[in-house]
Amino acid sequence: MKKLIVGQSGGPTSVINASLAGVYYEAKKKGFKVYGMVNGIEGLLQEKIVDLDDYFLDKNNLELLKRTPSSFLGTCRFKLGSIKEHEKTYEKIFDILDKHSIDSFIYIGGNDSMDTVESLSDYAALKKKKQKFLGIPKTIDNDLPIIDHCPGYGSAAKYIATTLREIIRDNTAYGTTNPTVAIVEIMGRHAGWLTSAAALARDESCEGVDAIFLPELPLDIDKFVEKVKVLVKRKASVVIAVSEGLITTEGKFVVELDKDLKKDSFGHKQLGGCAETLSNIIKEKLGVKVRPIILSTLQRAGAHLASQTDLEEAENCGKKCAELAYNGDTGKMVIMERVSNNPYKIKYSSFDDIHEIANIEKTVPIEWIDQENNYVKQELIDYIKPLIQGEVKQIYKDGLPQHLIR
Amino acid sequence: MKKLIVGQSGGPTSVINASLAGVYYEAKKKGFKVYGMVNGIEGLLQEKIVDLDDYFLDKNNLELLKRTPSSFLGTCRFKLGSIKEHEKTYEKIFDILDKHSIDSFIYIGGNDSMDTVESLSDYAALKKKKQKFLGIPKTIDNDLPIIDHCPGYGSAAKYIATTLREIIRDNTAYGTTNPTVAIVEIMGRHAGWLTSAAALARDESCEGVDAIFLPELPLDIDKFVEKVKVLVKRKASVVIAVSEGLITTEGKFVVELDKDLKKDSFGHKQLGGCAETLSNIIKEKLGVKVRPIILSTLQRAGAHLASQTDLEEAENCGKKCAELAYNGDTGKMVIMERVSNNPYKIKYSSFDDIHEIANIEKTVPIEWIDQENNYVKQELIDYIKPLIQGEVKQIYKDGLPQHLIR
Repeated sequence: MKKLIVGQSGGPTSVINASLAGVYYEAKKKGFKVYGMVNGIEGLLQEKIVDLDDYFLDKNNLELLKRTPSSFLGTCRFKLGSIKEHEKTYEKIFDILDKHSIDSFIYIGGNDSMDTVESLSDYAALKKKKQKFLGIPKTIDNDLPIIDHCPGYGSAAKYIATTLREIIRDNTAYGTTNPTVAIVEIMGRHAGWLTSAAALARDESCEGVDAIFLPELPLDIDKFVEKVKVLVKRKASVVIAVSEGLITTEGKFVVELDKDLKKDSFGHKQLGGCAETLSNIIKEKLGVKVRPIILSTLQRAGAHLASQTDLEEAENCGKKCAELAYNGDTGKMVIMERVSNNPYKIKYSSFDDIHEIANIEKTVPIEWIDQENNYVKQELIDYIKPLIQGEVKQIYKDGLPQHLIR
Repeated sequence: MKKLIVGQSGGPTSVINASLAGVYYEAKKKGFKVYGMVNGIEGLLQEKIVDLDDYFLDKNNLELLKRTPSSFLGTCRFKLGSIKEHEKTYEKIFDILDKHSIDSFIYIGGNDSMDTVESLSDYAALKKKKQKFLGIPKTIDNDLPIIDHCPGYGSAAKYIATTLREIIRDNTAYGTTNPTVAIVEIMGRHAGWLTSAAALARDESCEGVDAIFLPELPLDIDKFVEKVKVLVKRKASVVIAVSEGLITTEGKFVVELDKDLKKDSFGHKQLGGCAETLSNIIKEKLGVKVRPIILSTLQRAGAHLASQTDLEEAENCGKKCAELAYNGDTGKMVIMERVSNNPYKIKYSSFDDIHEIANIEKTVPIEWIDQENNYVKQELIDYIKPLIQGEVKQIYKDGLPQHLIR
């Protein structure tokens, strides 16, 4: 019986476990014995290996798994490094894989994780090892090239758009006497895909956010203040979406604007983010009420709001990868291609120049950002919309969603 | 045809509109013509009055209304003041009510709003005016006395417990090498009801939060640091729930601990809250990774996670109040009594000493807080649990929950 090991790596998402479920389901169907590595490569190096039958043979558990956010197997941020400089680590990994007679290795993760897959595959080719290495993409940041979009992104986008609708309703409740500005900080250091999802809030049942600022273009602080000034003259409720990674026209991170003065009681830098800095600036310059709201880890773990489309795609990527393993492929990553947008249709395939994927960050095309640089264009909305469709039926008990834990 | 006007006041909740729907539905059934005041008393004074048939005659809209967070009619924070000192305002209100031939006035709100109801009722008695004044309680803070619990609280509690489950999953993903502490700040300046809801996260599918700190008891900073120190030695993931209103043993708000040094680039006080201050302290003293997470307005507007029990009760309170109006009652507030906890059963009635309600803040009984003062007792969990039961079926369109807007 062929043996397969699967691991999770990098930041959590709402549907990374659906990919794990897909791998397990399909690999079992294809006759594999399926193991899991705890905390990715880092755990594998310590031989933290579990038999996934212990958890997933029960079909109810597999359903719970798909609805459990974050990494069921635990994750890591382990950089494998080059073969030349870290040969000992490579040797150790292969010793462990040999010891457990592993034939196929599947890694679910972002850029760095895909780099790990390619490097291990390269090493296997170099040393004529039998093991095959495959990757499944995941990242809420949606910043991997080649693939149309990344599993995990759609659910985060759905969480962001839903939450913004509620923030807008909340912010709109008060009268017209005192304008209130909410500045909502959304994840994404270099890519504005997540922040762009704020644009989906707008439709006939919601006014939508009033401005969106992506990290792809520099933020002119004066123009920012001017924009908010115009808005608060016109509306009592102003809601603005900003990316955590915003950079000023001077090339500084927005948070750096007050890094010297912003100290805590111990004289250390504050943990605050760019929403806080921008709130302080608006409060100072315009004298209006401002509330910074930071979506924090909620946006990447909000599985109760997962997109059914995203969850299914994450699961299908898992299944597709198990198929590749069965076919004896190696050094490949599962990718999704958007065959058509209306009706939305995805084709699953594989891509073998993983290093290309690992080292490029796909940002939002500048032509999809509004000329005024404070909103996004319809093309971007049309790109995101199919990805948030459908609601995942949660499994509730005593009023709360149930998860599967190790 | 008798005429009724209804308004909303104070901070938003996820189900305050369900009370509005209940009032409208029942008042119409009883033959009233139903108006709404925009932005509460503040709007009434400017004659901002709308005919609710324009919005709610369509039954689909009434269903959407129930699922729309925040105040559909808009809210205000208007303190009416004593009759003696503000007689002109009272006169103006009654002139407007007379002009529009209003018979009954229903106000949905918290402590201050209930005070408004009683004062207007007192004035009517004094001046022999025909209008009747009634109140419907709402507040996520759950700090009104007499009533078993407040509509709005259950949904906020469900949001908090659900979100904490997801935060815990997220925080647990990383390996054991670097402990990560998440400090989650929950609303409630003086009452710990909301923060207590963090305790519901724990069951067989979730480890639960590791400590809970309520504002009812002073926070000993040294003991707090010691508690976290013990936790990070034992576990790689530590999640702590704190109330925004925590006060130190010296009687200061926790946020005041670094108020002098915590300044922005303009020399002004930072907006940061107690989670940030506590995070800085832990980081400094223990050198571990800490992430402050502030649930902010999301917890009071998270209608997509509303409790079905809470929503039904809010609606029933609205219906009950319309009944009281029909019966010609005045100076009363709708209350809920818990007849039994298992099975959970609520009796709706009315209470007429509203001033008593308006001026007392009901906090968590000290005997429901753990002796160590870092968790809550089972009695408190048993009290909250029935209030978060049931999920409201949202009305989704294009992947997002729909709301009703004016």
